[in-house]
Amino acid sequence: MRDPDVSCRRVIVFDTTLRDGEQAPGCSMNLPEKLAVAGQLERLGVDVIEAGFAAASPGDAAAIKAVAKAVRAPAVASLARALEKDIDAAWEAVREAQRPRIHTFIATSPIHMEYKLKMGPDAVVERAASAVRYARSLCPDVEFSAEDASRSDPDFLCRVFSAAVEAGATTLNVPDTVGYAVPGEFAELVRRLRAGIRGVERAVLSVHCHNDLGLAVANSLAAIEAGAEQVECTVNGIGERAGNAALEELAMALRTRGNRLGACCGIDTTQIYPASRLVAASTGSKVQANKAIVGENAFAHEAGIHQHGILANRETYEIMTPESVGLPRNRMVLGKHSGRHAFDERVAELGLALGPEDAARIFEQFKELADKKKTVSDRDIEALVRGSARRLPESFRLERFVINSGSSITATSAVCLALRDGTREERVAVGDGPIDASFKAIDKIVGKRLVLEDFSLESVTGGKDAQGEAHVRIALDGRRYNGRGLSTDIVEASVRAYLAAINSMEAEAGGGDGTGRAS
Amino acid sequence: MRDPDVSCRRVIVFDTTLRDGEQAPGCSMNLPEKLAVAGQLERLGVDVIEAGFAAASPGDAAAIKAVAKAVRAPAVASLARALEKDIDAAWEAVREAQRPRIHTFIATSPIHMEYKLKMGPDAVVERAASAVRYARSLCPDVEFSAEDASRSDPDFLCRVFSAAVEAGATTLNVPDTVGYAVPGEFAELVRRLRAGIRGVERAVLSVHCHNDLGLAVANSLAAIEAGAEQVECTVNGIGERAGNAALEELAMALRTRGNRLGACCGIDTTQIYPASRLVAASTGSKVQANKAIVGENAFAHEAGIHQHGILANRETYEIMTPESVGLPRNRMVLGKHSGRHAFDERVAELGLALGPEDAARIFEQFKELADKKKTVSDRDIEALVRGSARRLPESFRLERFVINSGSSITATSAVCLALRDGTREERVAVGDGPIDASFKAIDKIVGKRLVLEDFSLESVTGGKDAQGEAHVRIALDGRRYNGRGLSTDIVEASVRAYLAAINSMEAEAGGGDGTGRAS
Repeated sequence: MRDPDVSCRRVIVFDTTLRDGEQAPGCSMNLPEKLAVAGQLERLGVDVIEAGFAAASPGDAAAIKAVAKAVRAPAVASLARALEKDIDAAWEAVREAQRPRIHTFIATSPIHMEYKLKMGPDAVVERAASAVRYARSLCPDVEFSAEDASRSDPDFLCRVFSAAVEAGATTLNVPDTVGYAVPGEFAELVRRLRAGIRGVERAVLSVHCHNDLGLAVANSLAAIEAGAEQVECTVNGIGERAGNAALEELAMALRTRGNRLGACCGIDTTQIYPASRLVAASTGSKVQANKAIVGENAFAHEAGIHQHGILANRETYEIMTPESVGLPRNRMVLGKHSGRHAFDERVAELGLALGPEDAARIFEQFKELADKKKTVSDRDIEALVRGSARRLPESFRLERFVINSGSSITATSAVCLALRDGTREERVAVGDGPIDASFKAIDKIVGKRLVLEDFSLESVTGGKDAQGEAHVRIALDGRRYNGRGLSTDIVEASVRAYLAAINSMEAEAGGGDGTGRAS
Repeated sequence: MRDPDVSCRRVIVFDTTLRDGEQAPGCSMNLPEKLAVAGQLERLGVDVIEAGFAAASPGDAAAIKAVAKAVRAPAVASLARALEKDIDAAWEAVREAQRPRIHTFIATSPIHMEYKLKMGPDAVVERAASAVRYARSLCPDVEFSAEDASRSDPDFLCRVFSAAVEAGATTLNVPDTVGYAVPGEFAELVRRLRAGIRGVERAVLSVHCHNDLGLAVANSLAAIEAGAEQVECTVNGIGERAGNAALEELAMALRTRGNRLGACCGIDTTQIYPASRLVAASTGSKVQANKAIVGENAFAHEAGIHQHGILANRETYEIMTPESVGLPRNRMVLGKHSGRHAFDERVAELGLALGPEDAARIFEQFKELADKKKTVSDRDIEALVRGSARRLPESFRLERFVINSGSSITATSAVCLALRDGTREERVAVGDGPIDASFKAIDKIVGKRLVLEDFSLESVTGGKDAQGEAHVRIALDGRRYNGRGLSTDIVEASVRAYLAAINSMEAEAGGGDGTGRAS
């Protein structure tokens, strides 16, 4: 959070977790997940939420519309190609937001114009201007991006951006679409654009950096030093290929080194850790242990020499505190004797927002877990809350299962599911291990040939009594669905994750409750 | 790999995966793993391998000694505090290397000198000089690091480094120990040191950057632009807290943008992908999907709009080819009809080095797997080869197990292990799910109270017939041991991983075969 005593140049934070992030392989989210992420982005204090690409699919448009209605403080944007039909779809999706924004783009690099657009430079300028003009006729806040700007001719960029300002663009965005830029060079480009765009003072200059060479955050910071006024980013840096600039790294660099960088932002950094965990769980895209700011080890000090220093004075090896990113330490351990009050307090401290009904339901789950485990950790509670974020209708619900397996016998699983019509169905299958057998038994009940694209399982905490959190990605006819399941029994966690993915698929088939995106 | 036609300023690559990387929580490796990683670092073409911190433990010293004997081209370094006993241990460990190096350090920032060293600046300068002088009396190649340099007074740094050169240091290293620097500032520091150190032209100026703010690679590149001649880094960027500068990002930035950055390096980039996979498997420290260069999605193009561009011309969205980092695409699928020749060829293409005995053994495993799975992917083969890297003596070997479990019955597991003395022991246990029950049954046989610190499982490929790779970290008396297990049955993979961790522990107890480090 910005220190209110310090006057600073406040950079606008434009979060595109729900658009560029969700576009990454396997990262698609369903509607309840998108709404949960949008709520957390609002708590983080981002200035703009790019909620999707309305013209991509009806499901995407519906999700943007829902986000636009749900959030209050941040502007809500939809991406749109420089085409009237895309802009119409974007406007339809964001118009009910408190602060709607249309974000339209066209590519400006020689290679993109020649091979992708098959358009000459003059036509590109004209299309950009007419798209911005049309968008402005609908919406007062219009962002224009010159795709692949970092590989475009800077003079041509000045020409396109000048035309966009003239047509009414309020934000001009400079994407390093392929992650090709290096910091010194990118800063030079920003300075050149600030000098060369006619009317640049009437618009906000923005950058959007990709991480292909590991430089997205450094390029964004270099651009800020050179005068960029908005940065585009995602939580955990998710996004196409190597992803986008990571919001948490930008925010903590500005907080820790703001004096040197000459800027700050409005992010409440204590909401970073809950945001990271929520996005990781919702997308199934895990954060590596050595990820800056939000990795499991980011605040862990291992070597004896470092521990010695840390004990003498935390600042010997710590430039940020865990608390500053919302990672609490040394707290009372919760267990089966903990009451509702202690539980509610902890949930609030963890930055997890729960309505009263959810809180009551999750408290019951907490008590069940506390009966099985000696202590219930913060990670356990987070996992329970994340599990509750999916409230899709359940087409198939687990009633019971029994498995029989071993290294020298054939694995079998008998699974009984409750169907939506109130009936039950039980099937048995053999397989290569109990989970394979269980999934095959479920396939028999569901009656579809599902492709299992990805499966992983992690213990939520250490200890043999830890909960396991399973993640499953299935595909049917080119569409992908994620599912998550939680249990102290990892076979049960896996079965629940598989059913969650199937229920997400069924919800979409049943009418737009899923993400509606082919991904 | 450096293009031989281009003349360039060649930066020295100093890899510290085996020292700073291995120091990260849970990343400890045993001796066979360290040797495998060292061999791959040599294939990568790194100039210096920092193989450990000899004074830390006898196991560390033994591992450095083994690496020193095993590699030929790279220099082999050991870290040492500025103490004679540390320097003696370092020399003893590296003396048999073709090119031995002693790397000694002392902290130079006010906070470190006051709280950790409890020494005044004059004493620090004197200690640094005498340590370097002593190291030079043993070894012609001596590196000196000023710990926490980025938070030190630049004038004082010039004084310490000048004294180190005077005492015979051949490399002067500038660590951003706490990851506090930002690129512009770090470049300024390097320029200032180049101007202010007496005799700087007689030594190589080096940087060592940490990633706490996500800027380790950017800071390293900025330092190179400012004249730094050596960069210190790790594979996958592993290391304390948020880790070190990632070797693969540095190498690919220099390869892709070398003209702009004015430098190149000697890394054979086609060995990057095998190196990344090997280090991830050996340390159990996974790489996130959106990790630059080596993440699963780094070369995946998801959005329809991007796929369209890619089909028209790869360069629209691709600044590097997957092949350039050793990630092959579109290859013949192997299956049960593939012969030894095709298998050997694929292993070579994957950059996996196998002796003839190992190749024969792994080919047998390949055939077994091909009987179970329709197709055997490159990832499957990598997993088989990685599995074979652990050739520790097996104190406990899995004979068989049978599990019985379900949502409404108590899970039981009967596990039979073969012991080293040729006998067998079988125990049964109940648990919360079949894996918990299996681990408890194994505990009864092993007779120790092991703490399960971490458990995870991933499918090696998609598909219900995929192999599962389990990773387990256990702890006993504050020491940690990693284990990995592979099977198409995930319960079996988990049991094998648990046993591998136990065997690693037993090997250490039995006399220095393990890592020998308390971590």
